[in-house]
Amino acid sequence: MDLLQKLKDPQVLKDLTEDAVVWATQHGLVMGLATPTPAAAVVHAPLALTPVPFPAGTFREAEAAAGAFAALVDAVAEDDAYLLATLRPTAAHDDFGVLAHLRSDYMLHTPTGSLLQVEINTIGVSFACLGGLTACLHGHLLGRLGAGAAERAALPPNDALDQLADALGAAAQAYGVEGAVVVMVVQPGERNLYDQQWAQTRLWERHGVRTLRRTLSELARDAELGADRRLRVGGAVAAVVYFRAGYVPEDYAGEAEWAARERVERSDAFKCPSVAYQLAGAKKVQQDLARPGQVERFLPDEAQAALVRRFFAGLWGLEDLADPDTAAAVGAALRDPGAFVLKPQREGGGHNLYGAELRARLERGGPGLGAYVLMQRILPPINRSVMVRGGEAVEADTLSELGIFSVLVRRGGEVLVSRGAGHLVRTKAAESDEGGVAAGYGVLDSPFLV
Amino acid sequence: MDLLQKLKDPQVLKDLTEDAVVWATQHGLVMGLATPTPAAAVVHAPLALTPVPFPAGTFREAEAAAGAFAALVDAVAEDDAYLLATLRPTAAHDDFGVLAHLRSDYMLHTPTGSLLQVEINTIGVSFACLGGLTACLHGHLLGRLGAGAAERAALPPNDALDQLADALGAAAQAYGVEGAVVVMVVQPGERNLYDQQWAQTRLWERHGVRTLRRTLSELARDAELGADRRLRVGGAVAAVVYFRAGYVPEDYAGEAEWAARERVERSDAFKCPSVAYQLAGAKKVQQDLARPGQVERFLPDEAQAALVRRFFAGLWGLEDLADPDTAAAVGAALRDPGAFVLKPQREGGGHNLYGAELRARLERGGPGLGAYVLMQRILPPINRSVMVRGGEAVEADTLSELGIFSVLVRRGGEVLVSRGAGHLVRTKAAESDEGGVAAGYGVLDSPFLV
Repeated sequence: MDLLQKLKDPQVLKDLTEDAVVWATQHGLVMGLATPTPAAAVVHAPLALTPVPFPAGTFREAEAAAGAFAALVDAVAEDDAYLLATLRPTAAHDDFGVLAHLRSDYMLHTPTGSLLQVEINTIGVSFACLGGLTACLHGHLLGRLGAGAAERAALPPNDALDQLADALGAAAQAYGVEGAVVVMVVQPGERNLYDQQWAQTRLWERHGVRTLRRTLSELARDAELGADRRLRVGGAVAAVVYFRAGYVPEDYAGEAEWAARERVERSDAFKCPSVAYQLAGAKKVQQDLARPGQVERFLPDEAQAALVRRFFAGLWGLEDLADPDTAAAVGAALRDPGAFVLKPQREGGGHNLYGAELRARLERGGPGLGAYVLMQRILPPINRSVMVRGGEAVEADTLSELGIFSVLVRRGGEVLVSRGAGHLVRTKAAESDEGGVAAGYGVLDSPFLV
Repeated sequence: MDLLQKLKDPQVLKDLTEDAVVWATQHGLVMGLATPTPAAAVVHAPLALTPVPFPAGTFREAEAAAGAFAALVDAVAEDDAYLLATLRPTAAHDDFGVLAHLRSDYMLHTPTGSLLQVEINTIGVSFACLGGLTACLHGHLLGRLGAGAAERAALPPNDALDQLADALGAAAQAYGVEGAVVVMVVQPGERNLYDQQWAQTRLWERHGVRTLRRTLSELARDAELGADRRLRVGGAVAAVVYFRAGYVPEDYAGEAEWAARERVERSDAFKCPSVAYQLAGAKKVQQDLARPGQVERFLPDEAQAALVRRFFAGLWGLEDLADPDTAAAVGAALRDPGAFVLKPQREGGGHNLYGAELRARLERGGPGLGAYVLMQRILPPINRSVMVRGGEAVEADTLSELGIFSVLVRRGGEVLVSRGAGHLVRTKAAESDEGGVAAGYGVLDSPFLV
């Protein structure tokens, strides 16, 4: 079935767009309005109207690597000395519970046909819930287009929402205090709140665990750390503190917010993530792990290490420009800036440098350059997609990024849960170098395995 | 469990309000915004935060009477001569398919403890879908309040959404043309569109039947009646024409819209409702049926007739003010206007006269008075409710109306489906004499059987 061919009929396109908007709105695949009038108003999340073709074998490989990446991040987060040496802040080792919800993001690299890792996210990982719903939406829309069973089987099942809820539930159960809650640390005015609310609702339905939503400022005021290392928020004991904030400097308005984060860290609650896990996801660590022998240091299993390595793109730190490898990479980037990207250490997106900007920044040099890593630019295939935003459909040339979730729940040395946890495809216009779904550039999508 | 007692705690009230808004938004219990910016934006439907106490025995009685009321309306709609004599328009008898989706609305009458019928709706019956979802919402919220199994059992199951979809599916199947569709006739700019869209989505999921949404003006342009009496809309054959519009004069902008209605009526499609069914729901007919012997004429089964009669409130036509019964009722209304209501024949609400206005209209008299019926005013119990609109909770004295749905599918003389089809409770502020949920006065609610 050539899906896009069917959409050439304007009536089919109009009807399917309405189907998509209605289904998404009926099933909570929604976001807050930019200007909420009235409060509580929502609109469907930005969507691709049909799933994007994706090579099946490559998709399965990325799924199979989810556990190895979780093991790698876990081993790095456990190694205080390594984090200290690599990042130079204090990384307090966590004896207590760790809940990791990770997403490893990839793009297909056209010149080689391989899948290359863009980054691995260890904090505030979003779109497990809306991404899972998008798979259901696309199943519905394929049915409306008259797809048969074989074609619908090309949409892989996506249990990302249940997996996140079950990991939160497993951590809360392992914490072992009746009535203890999950504290979700959120940003004020979050528009992507239904992606978060679905985890709360599903956690309640499947595990009977309640969630409190608090900003870091509210935690600074209300969270108390007892001598028993229990964290109490408004009378409830926190079994899990789940960060959907706290990864950009703006989330820490002042000392009080930093102190609240420290109180969480020193408590015996499961943290998603701990500070060590958050640090293990830094691009600086990603760059260090790309050096020969580093992955093998953390993953003694050779096959596992090799599985992880095959997804690595070229990646160079810029602290020591005299280093021969670094100098060679910088030289190549100055000659051919289109084949590279300059990425800042900090999370949150929106600050990458490409092309002429990249070249200018490299030429300017200076000590600030060490805050960036230089990365091989991945050249993904260009697809044709219909993107639906605010009820309106727009067709465009697009490129897609595949995310593979994994969850890991560990108490001290005991790993309670470790598994792949669904997937996510985000698609954006090919001419847009930057931006996520929540920022208004991309749309939620699914892989149509070919 | 005294639900409202728990809500006296401001934190419990705040948390439960958020729970209600989130659950409703996740599950498509939503309406369009009054000023949709962007297009496709929605907000949760107005809601009661907790279900309203309702006597269990009375609720069961009303459920049990659903079939008898459907049989009554069906018999009336079949009797051209009766409709002609009662209403004086031409009532073309329909040989073909009839799909009835009825809702009989009741209120508890405090002086006698009995349930009295407010009206029976035969066209454009709304809130089967959002009402069914409200029952699920209240089940969820009771759980969040810590209700046990016994308390949750006090919320009767409500399959109103599936019943409507199944009735539409049964009619489409009986029509017997592969690929034939349901044409839903809608008002332009409908805010309550998700109540309608749920019927479409569920019909597709359960029966694989598609729905086209068209205004009467669009039908006037696009609907063609063939010599074979098939109605074709945009290339599709209409198995069912389902009116969610066409019951107020404003829906018929001109002759073209009246002609479109006639084309539908002359086609062999199942009509929900036929003109005869729509007429059978007129308040004038309701008033005529209240006269001695009239119900018995249409329902030969004595027990069935008695079952229906017990819900009748006092009801008097005003064409012949010299009639002794009428004169006595008008005299009583002038002395005690608070015990009566003056209702216009037309549907859609918003025009009833009460109190001083009622007395003034009766005193003014004139031939226009015949367009009204005088009705015993039902005096329902006053409850205390928390109503949630646009994310905000407001507590108020309220009164509630119970609706019992029924469906009937008939082809010629053969009744294919006839059954009760769920319920609806709407609650409004006690000081508001008028208005529905869609108009912004009432909220969706559920019965908590006591």
